[in-house]
Amino acid sequence: MKVLTNKTITDVTGILASGISCGIKKDGKKDLCIIYSRYKAVAAAVFTKNKVKAAPLLINMENIKDGYIHAMIVNSGNANSCTGEDGRLNATKVLESAAKHLSLPPKEVLIQSTGAIGIPLPMEIIIPGIEKACSELSDHGGLAAAEAILTTDTSVKTITVEFEIDGKPVMMSGIAKGSTMIHPDMATMFSLIVTDASISSDLLNKFFKSSVESSYNMISVDGDTSTNDMAVILANGASGTSLIDNSDESCKIFDAALNYVNTELAKKIAKDGEGSTKLLEVNVVNARSVEDAKKCAKSVASSTLVKCGMYGSYPVWQDIICSIGYSGANFDTAAFDIFIKGDNSKLQLVKDACEYDFDDNKVKDLLSKDLVELIIDFKDGQNFATAWGCDMGVDYIKANAYLNI
Amino acid sequence: MKVLTNKTITDVTGILASGISCGIKKDGKKDLCIIYSRYKAVAAAVFTKNKVKAAPLLINMENIKDGYIHAMIVNSGNANSCTGEDGRLNATKVLESAAKHLSLPPKEVLIQSTGAIGIPLPMEIIIPGIEKACSELSDHGGLAAAEAILTTDTSVKTITVEFEIDGKPVMMSGIAKGSTMIHPDMATMFSLIVTDASISSDLLNKFFKSSVESSYNMISVDGDTSTNDMAVILANGASGTSLIDNSDESCKIFDAALNYVNTELAKKIAKDGEGSTKLLEVNVVNARSVEDAKKCAKSVASSTLVKCGMYGSYPVWQDIICSIGYSGANFDTAAFDIFIKGDNSKLQLVKDACEYDFDDNKVKDLLSKDLVELIIDFKDGQNFATAWGCDMGVDYIKANAYLNI
Repeated sequence: MKVLTNKTITDVTGILASGISCGIKKDGKKDLCIIYSRYKAVAAAVFTKNKVKAAPLLINMENIKDGYIHAMIVNSGNANSCTGEDGRLNATKVLESAAKHLSLPPKEVLIQSTGAIGIPLPMEIIIPGIEKACSELSDHGGLAAAEAILTTDTSVKTITVEFEIDGKPVMMSGIAKGSTMIHPDMATMFSLIVTDASISSDLLNKFFKSSVESSYNMISVDGDTSTNDMAVILANGASGTSLIDNSDESCKIFDAALNYVNTELAKKIAKDGEGSTKLLEVNVVNARSVEDAKKCAKSVASSTLVKCGMYGSYPVWQDIICSIGYSGANFDTAAFDIFIKGDNSKLQLVKDACEYDFDDNKVKDLLSKDLVELIIDFKDGQNFATAWGCDMGVDYIKANAYLNI
Repeated sequence: MKVLTNKTITDVTGILASGISCGIKKDGKKDLCIIYSRYKAVAAAVFTKNKVKAAPLLINMENIKDGYIHAMIVNSGNANSCTGEDGRLNATKVLESAAKHLSLPPKEVLIQSTGAIGIPLPMEIIIPGIEKACSELSDHGGLAAAEAILTTDTSVKTITVEFEIDGKPVMMSGIAKGSTMIHPDMATMFSLIVTDASISSDLLNKFFKSSVESSYNMISVDGDTSTNDMAVILANGASGTSLIDNSDESCKIFDAALNYVNTELAKKIAKDGEGSTKLLEVNVVNARSVEDAKKCAKSVASSTLVKCGMYGSYPVWQDIICSIGYSGANFDTAAFDIFIKGDNSKLQLVKDACEYDFDDNKVKDLLSKDLVELIIDFKDGQNFATAWGCDMGVDYIKANAYLNI
């Protein structure tokens, strides 16, 4: 597998996209995009576990049922959530309008809205916007689409890989958004992956759901999850390679590429957490079970006190121990170690559940980097898991207390 | 039941206490206290659910087993947690020293340490301190004791009530500490209640454990829980009233007093959350079950985004809806209302899951008060629950990022 920099979703065979500004965002930034596959694609999706689901998600949960999707329309700046019956009608109108312009049955289109909750969709702006976005579909519109799905994000999030099936190249690329209300069990995030691989619906669903568990469901910015979270993959088979089969080596190659793409997008979301200054990676190793490792990694990456400590580049090993302790993981409470990973070595903070005599300055240096990697070694098994979060700083509070309004 | 202001634990018959500065805290503040009952007391306690438990708690879990306790020694400034085998030996030495000076068997004494984690107890300071604290025990030392258990708290937390059993007065009083790492399932808190009521061990345990569920386990400051959390009640029977019996009216009176004392102390802890400026009370009403109401109330009071919004006195009804949605509670997602309670009325924010046309200025006024009371009406049953939290502000981040070090 190769990572292709400077490539994005429209470099995948058969994928067209566009991203325009139709006026939902008041600052003139892009806010509407269409992603279109020339070939009907096998599709899999996961949705927020929040009981309150936005109108577009309720439509998608129906449309994805038969496993095939042709296009997707996404607006940012307005989540069309908590908008009641009118919200559901508006989502249907947007979907039908896009389907009409693309000459597709509405049930082959997905819809996503992200942004402010509780405000009616400005239909008088979106409907003409859809026509424009459809007319601008092109094989170089991927980055514009990636821009058009952002809300409070500070950067475009895309990743592209290439791998071989039958000796022929297959491409997979994804775009994502999300920076606050980010937590395990799906966060205020949206992720769209496209690939020209040829794969069955059953296999795509199996791989995608499993991969989401170890990527988007292992990140936390603030412990809140939203009404609009969704991740989706379209596989259009346009690479012309043979069908990926469960019994095949190609299966492992596809799964590895998918995990890489989802994990990289998840990390980009975690790193772009509102007000954050660094990415926090929590690796739990030598745990009794994968479940124990996951619980512990998520708990540490989600701890408000750990996040605050990371913001101040302060070695809050006591807070880390507390968050391990309340994680629900099973482990030997007297025999675990904690390290921070450096460039070529690891620096020990805790040995057998007690403070280790570490060098304050060296620790401070490692905690001041863009990426802080913690290792929690349970010394009690063979299993591991990784979770990602970010630090929580003064800017997070200011943004979410609306102090500048 | 009467609330007695200006009374504290040593106003309960048979209770002596002292609080001194022995030098654990570098700023000269009180850091060691003894609470002693002239009569052996029936006792009940609950401990942190954190898997990593501090040394003193492991001792207490043994000592409380037979249900009788005579005294308690508490130090602040050092939690004696994550201190390994030496920590356990030190806790035993402290306990044995206190027991010796009080002429009690060690198993009739409880011990608690609260403060910094991972630092060895300064035994050369504490051991002489114990002798001094024992010699200063008096029937007016309650407030000094209440001061000596504090860590980053900004205020002493005490509450006292009087009620009648057989027409005779019975008193109940509590002291508590806690302001960060506060979350359901016991937080970095310590609460001690004393009463001169006469009650069996079984009944005291039953009432206390149930009361803790609706008080200390319904508060959240930051979602973190610690290694040292503990709540304990001693009932020494010194009021001379007859034994409270399950079949009796006195049972209800005692239970009501206990719930009041625990709830008031829990609210004082939530209000004194690190860097907080206001108390947040979340009332869920007309829920399908008590469990649904509790889940929802805890979730809203624990949401980082809701806490940030409260800090900015901004009506973040969207964040409230999200935290209701991911709470795990069962409810009709299209039919719930949200209100803020005013002095004589309530102001509606959300009607049937959609934004209600509220007056921004009136809402801002209510959100700017010391106490913000939210009401979430599920309109779907007869059950209710209340949780408490506080806002999360810039000072919380600064304190926990150690920005001033």
